[in-house]
Amino acid sequence: MSLLVLGSVAFDAIETPFGKKDKIVGGAASYISLSASFFYNKINLVSVVGYDFPGNFIKQLNNRGVDTRGLQIVKNEKSFFWSGKYHNDMNSRDTLVTELNVLENFDPIVPEEYQNCKYVVLGNLHPVVQSILLKRLEKRPELVIMDTMNFWIESAKKELRNTLEMTDVLIINDEEARQLSGEYSLLKASRIIRNMGPRYLVIKKGEHGALLFYNNEIFYCPALPLEEVFDPTGAGDTFAGGFAGFIAKSDDTSFDNMKKAVVYGSAMASFCVEKFGTEKLLELNDIDVNERLNMFLKLSDMGF
Amino acid sequence: MSLLVLGSVAFDAIETPFGKKDKIVGGAASYISLSASFFYNKINLVSVVGYDFPGNFIKQLNNRGVDTRGLQIVKNEKSFFWSGKYHNDMNSRDTLVTELNVLENFDPIVPEEYQNCKYVVLGNLHPVVQSILLKRLEKRPELVIMDTMNFWIESAKKELRNTLEMTDVLIINDEEARQLSGEYSLLKASRIIRNMGPRYLVIKKGEHGALLFYNNEIFYCPALPLEEVFDPTGAGDTFAGGFAGFIAKSDDTSFDNMKKAVVYGSAMASFCVEKFGTEKLLELNDIDVNERLNMFLKLSDMGF
Repeated sequence: MSLLVLGSVAFDAIETPFGKKDKIVGGAASYISLSASFFYNKINLVSVVGYDFPGNFIKQLNNRGVDTRGLQIVKNEKSFFWSGKYHNDMNSRDTLVTELNVLENFDPIVPEEYQNCKYVVLGNLHPVVQSILLKRLEKRPELVIMDTMNFWIESAKKELRNTLEMTDVLIINDEEARQLSGEYSLLKASRIIRNMGPRYLVIKKGEHGALLFYNNEIFYCPALPLEEVFDPTGAGDTFAGGFAGFIAKSDDTSFDNMKKAVVYGSAMASFCVEKFGTEKLLELNDIDVNERLNMFLKLSDMGF
Repeated sequence: MSLLVLGSVAFDAIETPFGKKDKIVGGAASYISLSASFFYNKINLVSVVGYDFPGNFIKQLNNRGVDTRGLQIVKNEKSFFWSGKYHNDMNSRDTLVTELNVLENFDPIVPEEYQNCKYVVLGNLHPVVQSILLKRLEKRPELVIMDTMNFWIESAKKELRNTLEMTDVLIINDEEARQLSGEYSLLKASRIIRNMGPRYLVIKKGEHGALLFYNNEIFYCPALPLEEVFDPTGAGDTFAGGFAGFIAKSDDTSFDNMKKAVVYGSAMASFCVEKFGTEKLLELNDIDVNERLNMFLKLSDMGF
């Protein structure tokens, strides 16, 4: 039993109203793996980097129980690079640079040792790469958790729909949910999207919390009000990692357990935004995570 | 012991993407009183209307236990009239017409029978009118709950600050909290605003729920995801009415009880937006309110 994580491991350059970082480690799978590692220690990473990627970060992943035998290192190419600038309200950003590099021809090879995975997170990547990985698994995993973004909803709708059909849990933000469904009401959007494949849908709303939809059930997890959001980069991936890590640890895919997973995902995301990049995740310990969970419990306690 | 409600009773013309109403009953105090009446039946209204106002609506208020001896009827003037048009996302609106009419020289006279009030809601009005009412009360009420809006924050800042000093609970929306405090972070804004007077601060975030701040405590009440928001007019007043009505009924101003009041306020507001104007509030019964409360409890149950 293990948790397989597919996604990018990359470099980011980030500018927010609080500062600027020229080249730091980022990528969906970096955040997902780090975040999941606070709950679970059989994490199998499938990704690709170039010759320029720091071995030190790979060691940090290994130290946190992440198996990197599925992390391909391409000798003659550079790592994926993304650069973005956030607006003053932190709710929107401009992409300044996207250099695909090693991602351009990424073939998601699944090491034999990874075959027995029970849980899979498909981090944000081209939906065809996501579906190829699923098809390479000899046994259908118990739960496929998927993330995507506006870019694929626009440019690869057909391929995305194909991957969605193989997905159990889709985790996207409110804007993406509206775009994918064509509906403004998130309640209506959730029905349309769940008819595309995923039984479970999580809609993240940033500082406004997250919604979990399943059958006729809805769960609304608040977000913790923060002094400042330093850098929102990776918050969504960190959410997905905490969510998946908790599911894998508890080995329970019921709606009731998934609600808890949404709370843990939200708690991890609330840490992520407090510093630049993966900085905060790398300095956390289990006590911090438990304290944060208790803050969420208190925050949402209606007192009845 | 009673709950005194100050605010406008008026006509509205409303246009939303779902339709248009030319002249319906509105006004902050109409919504506050109706909403509070589901919890408490000693509601004393202080307001003013013109010769054109329908006696039928006043009877509806009386039937719901609202004492209207403090509702002045001015024989030679028209009622306050507001007209607005909502944008497609329902999160913003344009004011098309504001005719003050009877509100222009409104003097908030407090009938002798109202003097013994324990709880007061100062609905959105000029802050000087709000403070005059408070000064006319022979005994300081146990709890003063106040609402205001961006217009007064801009145009009557000094007078508003004066009224805030006499207030225990301020209920405003996120945009107003940012404007009043000059801080984008709601956590920082909440501290600045509570230094202006109110010990308790409720920040309403529409479809994103509501926050209650007190000392170092925060409570986040989610909003119920709805099929459609038909007409947001009066939702904030309806929230304040449910909040105040529950506080008066339970006669308990502790933080723990105020959390419950926020949930009841949110439940009432979720009804208000389902139809135009006060329509939905007028057709509700206690069973509906209890069912809605249970939906909120379920919605926020983290399952731990």
